[in-house]
Amino acid sequence: MQKEISQAVIRRMPRYYRYLRELLDEGIDRISSNELSVRMKVTASQIRQDLNNFGGFGQQGYGYNVQYLYDEIGKILGLDCQHNIIVIGTGNMGQALAKYVNFEKRGFIMIGLFDVNPALIGSSIRGIPIFSVEELPAFVRDHRVDIAVLTLPKNQAEQIANLLVKLDIHAIWNFAHLDLNLPEDVVVENVHLSDSLMQLSYNIVKKRMEEESSGTAEK
Amino acid sequence: MQKEISQAVIRRMPRYYRYLRELLDEGIDRISSNELSVRMKVTASQIRQDLNNFGGFGQQGYGYNVQYLYDEIGKILGLDCQHNIIVIGTGNMGQALAKYVNFEKRGFIMIGLFDVNPALIGSSIRGIPIFSVEELPAFVRDHRVDIAVLTLPKNQAEQIANLLVKLDIHAIWNFAHLDLNLPEDVVVENVHLSDSLMQLSYNIVKKRMEEESSGTAEK
Repeated sequence: MQKEISQAVIRRMPRYYRYLRELLDEGIDRISSNELSVRMKVTASQIRQDLNNFGGFGQQGYGYNVQYLYDEIGKILGLDCQHNIIVIGTGNMGQALAKYVNFEKRGFIMIGLFDVNPALIGSSIRGIPIFSVEELPAFVRDHRVDIAVLTLPKNQAEQIANLLVKLDIHAIWNFAHLDLNLPEDVVVENVHLSDSLMQLSYNIVKKRMEEESSGTAEK
Repeated sequence: MQKEISQAVIRRMPRYYRYLRELLDEGIDRISSNELSVRMKVTASQIRQDLNNFGGFGQQGYGYNVQYLYDEIGKILGLDCQHNIIVIGTGNMGQALAKYVNFEKRGFIMIGLFDVNPALIGSSIRGIPIFSVEELPAFVRDHRVDIAVLTLPKNQAEQIANLLVKLDIHAIWNFAHLDLNLPEDVVVENVHLSDSLMQLSYNIVKKRMEEESSGTAEK
């Protein structure tokens, strides 16, 4: 049904979704690509092109129906389905994600947490039980698991990721500080926080150098 | 000194840095762009082009000196300087970041945490004190702050970001679920976890549809 859409377009979709949610919260039910363009700081032509990838949604001179567009983009992003999630590695980041309730509003339901630490196993976070990693195969046999979140040290991540693939889990949200080598049919989305921080650091240093070379804090 | 380098190239630099660190840890002190290309799953030509942006580092037929390249990329990324960081919003995500010690190894030092919750103010995490947000102006006057991390609800983020800019903080690592409207000379790096999860969800749904339309689980 869908033609191939570039990942660059897809990367912009959650942002549209976020802005449309804000419009709904403000009680705005119709918006032109020009008005949306001002809010989102992208060109109206980009907006029209992006949304045309999915069949448009807009009518010339009439604007977009915000609720309709919001719902349709939600469907495109798979937010009309429930996604069952497990988190492997219940350290600081794993706990933070487990405590974050907003994911559930979007249909991402955490059904189990896993760790190797005996002090954690058997306890729970927000009612979500923490199991031993050894119980993973049995858990996956008994529950539908759509996404596994890897929040564990990099030296354990590869081995666990391979185990997950063997257990037929095909989507991984990877917070471990490495790139996973997995079969092509496994969907991986990386969150490399250190990389993000280094990117910030680069831009700080670059700005400092520009200011120094221009001699004044102009602009 | 530096010519303008595209953000796409810069985005790849932390990844080079990560792989070079691994090579060093494995005791490898010299590597060709071809060998690096196999490890990193990018073309050797891309590697040569990327590194040429910074003056090369390589010698034809001789490969890259791993330690030298690692150090130089570290400098490019500003990792040879200390960056003082404050975290505003000491909820789940703020606490997870405050507890994460690896940032300090790269020169990112957390010097203060801030919150509005009286139950947290006055306590500390890993020895880093938690202050009231009201103490921000005084704190920033008395300490050099290079980066502010925003880990607070989106309805508070904009106001705090504006305050930070007024206090002359020009780099923000933004985890709040919105785009900040700030002057152009403020460097912002966003970590939108929900966007990342939606991207993953899109790719899961897309893969399912492809498998269904192909009729078999072929690959």
